[in-house]
Amino acid sequence: MTRASIHLRMAQLGITLPAPAAPAGAYVPFVISGSLLMVSGQLPVHDGAVVHHGRVGTELTVEDGIAAARLCALNLLAQAAAACGGDLDRVQRVLRLAGFVQAAPGFGDHPKVLNGASDLMVEVFGQAGRHVRIAVGAASLPLGAAVEVEGTFEIA
Amino acid sequence: MTRASIHLRMAQLGITLPAPAAPAGAYVPFVISGSLLMVSGQLPVHDGAVVHHGRVGTELTVEDGIAAARLCALNLLAQAAAACGGDLDRVQRVLRLAGFVQAAPGFGDHPKVLNGASDLMVEVFGQAGRHVRIAVGAASLPLGAAVEVEGTFEIA
Amino acid sequence: MTRASIHLRMAQLGITLPAPAAPAGAYVPFVISGSLLMVSGQLPVHDGAVVHHGRVGTELTVEDGIAAARLCALNLLAQAAAACGGDLDRVQRVLRLAGFVQAAPGFGDHPKVLNGASDLMVEVFGQAGRHVRIAVGAASLPLGAAVEVEGTFEIA
Repeated sequence: MTRASIHLRMAQLGITLPAPAAPAGAYVPFVISGSLLMVSGQLPVHDGAVVHHGRVGTELTVEDGIAAARLCALNLLAQAAAACGGDLDRVQRVLRLAGFVQAAPGFGDHPKVLNGASDLMVEVFGQAGRHVRIAVGAASLPLGAAVEVEGTFEIA
Repeated sequence: MTRASIHLRMAQLGITLPAPAAPAGAYVPFVISGSLLMVSGQLPVHDGAVVHHGRVGTELTVEDGIAAARLCALNLLAQAAAACGGDLDRVQRVLRLAGFVQAAPGFGDHPKVLNGASDLMVEVFGQAGRHVRIAVGAASLPLGAAVEVEGTFEIA
Repeated sequence: MTRASIHLRMAQLGITLPAPAAPAGAYVPFVISGSLLMVSGQLPVHDGAVVHHGRVGTELTVEDGIAAARLCALNLLAQAAAACGGDLDRVQRVLRLAGFVQAAPGFGDHPKVLNGASDLMVEVFGQAGRHVRIAVGAASLPLGAAVEVEGTFEIA
């Protein structure tokens, strides 16, 4: 895969970028410092509303959590594209995802849930989509969201 | 606003930097790597003691949480100033805040709470204070603190 | 201490690096971007299995938590060594640890617990091991682990 094929690959995979979500507070969706692109924590938002609420493993199944994590990652891509003036080919590498899963004490399947986000990055960017990750269980998340994912990218 | 006006602006706003808080463990309050200044997670400490304890939304109101977050941010600024030899004009940009709110399951107003920290950064640095953010609900925090905020800055 | 003595110092301290743990999901254990080495969150894994489960302060003592944090840090070092082709002398500095402690509401001794990780870094790297840190209480962690620690290093 050449570097110029990210948007083509996404089209072939049937992946459509949503409009970048508005921040939920007094911050900005992305900053660029040198070659580092940092994107704010993204929620499982679709058309402006959180669509996966509650605790994974209790109110929600792991499969629901995976879908929520994938949606967070899609929103990360939308922000990354906006940061790059619409051109995701400027992304050299996905460096890091930090994933928080709203879950009850005793839950342990955070890695499965967050693979919903990680897998999307690898589908879209191939080898350049492989990243480091932390996966943590949150007692609560903004707006009751089931999952939140933050992303750091290396850009050209 | 010129870059030389940060301390003047703070004086005009009536914002006084506290003494940098001592670390609560075997770590240092800040490190500098290239142009990145990383500051350890700060608690709502005043005169050496945590002044906002417990869970926001249960023992504490959202307004208490906002005050706690603002105090964390003030302590971040104190550390950033110490890292810059007392000269906050070396801060080119606030890059990222990571905020953790001690809260019960079901709480969702983390963005409002953490605006207490984000707003202070914008008051002090103007446009250069706008940053990316994650907001997460913690089951517990060091010393029972209500809020903890970590900061990353770009410095010259 | 010269930069060439890290592995000798570890031998003198009786610290043996484990084999790097396999990721628990669809991500990689480390990435390098410029001089930044980012290592994925490490669990208290020994011989491929998590050996410290449950909540610190409830099912586990603080001393158990300290041991868990130290094991996480040892796994971070194993990943850092792998990232550096086996040569930890390439590590210029430990920049940041992010530590998550599985704990019940009301727990506040996260700093003590995470000193288990921080102290190991200083034992191994001396002054270059001093880092910034965040310490957060998690409602749950992957595979039921008691502690998770992420690390960022500056390398040559």
